[in-house]
Amino acid sequence: MAHTYTPPVQALIDELGRLPGIGPKSAQRIAFHLLKVSDDDANRLASAIRDAKARVRFCERCFNVSESDLCGYCSDDRRDSSIICVVEESRDIVAIEKTGEYRGRYHVLLGAMSPLEGIGPEQLKIRELLNRLGPEGVEEVIVCTNPNTEGEVTAMYLARILKPLGLSVTRIASGLPVGGDLEYADELTLGRALEGRRAIDA
Amino acid sequence: MAHTYTPPVQALIDELGRLPGIGPKSAQRIAFHLLKVSDDDANRLASAIRDAKARVRFCERCFNVSESDLCGYCSDDRRDSSIICVVEESRDIVAIEKTGEYRGRYHVLLGAMSPLEGIGPEQLKIRELLNRLGPEGVEEVIVCTNPNTEGEVTAMYLARILKPLGLSVTRIASGLPVGGDLEYADELTLGRALEGRRAIDA
Repeated sequence: MAHTYTPPVQALIDELGRLPGIGPKSAQRIAFHLLKVSDDDANRLASAIRDAKARVRFCERCFNVSESDLCGYCSDDRRDSSIICVVEESRDIVAIEKTGEYRGRYHVLLGAMSPLEGIGPEQLKIRELLNRLGPEGVEEVIVCTNPNTEGEVTAMYLARILKPLGLSVTRIASGLPVGGDLEYADELTLGRALEGRRAIDA
Repeated sequence: MAHTYTPPVQALIDELGRLPGIGPKSAQRIAFHLLKVSDDDANRLASAIRDAKARVRFCERCFNVSESDLCGYCSDDRRDSSIICVVEESRDIVAIEKTGEYRGRYHVLLGAMSPLEGIGPEQLKIRELLNRLGPEGVEEVIVCTNPNTEGEVTAMYLARILKPLGLSVTRIASGLPVGGDLEYADELTLGRALEGRRAIDA
C-alpha cells in the first residue's frame, strides 16, 4: 500500500494545494475538515464555486467582476465618467467604495506588471484602458495599484503612456496608516510619508 | 449599490472563509483566483470536493478515511493486530507509514481532548477503541497523539483507562528533531529530550 491517501482524498488535497497561499499542510487540513463536516456544508462550497464560475464574468468595459455585460459601476449613469480609478483587482474596488470618497469610474487591470513572473503590459488590461479614454471623455486617471514593487512599476508605466495624451495622472498617497504609530513604521513608508508631506490648513 | 461583491462572489468568499486557517483576506484572494482560472480548473476543485464527500467515508473499525467499509490497514491480514497505534487524524497515519517502521494496526480518534473547546472523551472514538481490544487480541497501544496540550491530555486519559486492562501503553518519544539544532530548540522540547535520554549502545 502506498503511503498516500485514498485517491479521492489525494485528489482533493492536490486541488486545494493549487490555490494561492495554500501549502501542502493547509491543503491536508482543509481536505480533512471537508471530510468531517456534513455533506451539506461541503457541497455548499462546491456549489458556490460552480455557481460563481457559471454566473460571474468580467465587466466588458472595466473588467470588474459582474453578473451582466456591464458591472454596476459602469452602468450607473450617476458616476463621473471623466475620472477613472485604475486598480489591480476587483477587490480593490470594494475597498475604495467603502471609503465613500470616490464617485468616478473604475478600470481593473487584472494584475500588475511583474518582470520576475513575466507579466508585462500586454498581459494586463492596459490596451482596454486606452480604448476607453476617448469615448468616455476621461480627463483624470488615478492610479490605485498597490504600493509595492509591482504596483509601482505598473503606475510608472501607466503614467509614462498616459501623460503624453494630455491626461492628468495621479497616484494614491503612500504614508503612515491613520491610527498608526510612527515608531513602528518601516523606513520606506516613513520616507514616503515625509516625501508626501502637505501644508497644514490652519 | 452596497460595497460588497456581486452575490455569487460574496457567497464563494463566505464559504471559503469557513475553512480552517482561511481568514477573510485569504478567502477573497482564493475566490478571485478561482474566478480568474479556467472553468475547468475551478470545476475540478468543486468536483474533487463532491467526489471525496460521495466516495470517502470513515473505516468502520479504525476511522481512517476509506473508500470501503474497512480501510486498507484494517483489511490487510499481514498487519500485526496485537499492536494499535492511536492517532488523532488520518493524516497522522500517512506520516507514520512513511517511516516504514510500523506494521501494526491504527485507530483514529478524530480529534483530541480539549476542555477549552468542550471536546471530551465521548466526542472521540475512544469507546470504539475499547471495543476493539478484546476481539482483536490487542497487547500494546502506542499513543501517537500530537505532543501538544490536547494530545498530552488525551494520552494521559488513554493511559489511565487502558493500563488497568493489563495492556502495555506507550507514548511516542518527544525530543529534538533529527537534524535539528540544540541552540534553536525551545525549552520544553529540550526538557523532554533530556528527560527521555537513552543509554548509548557502543
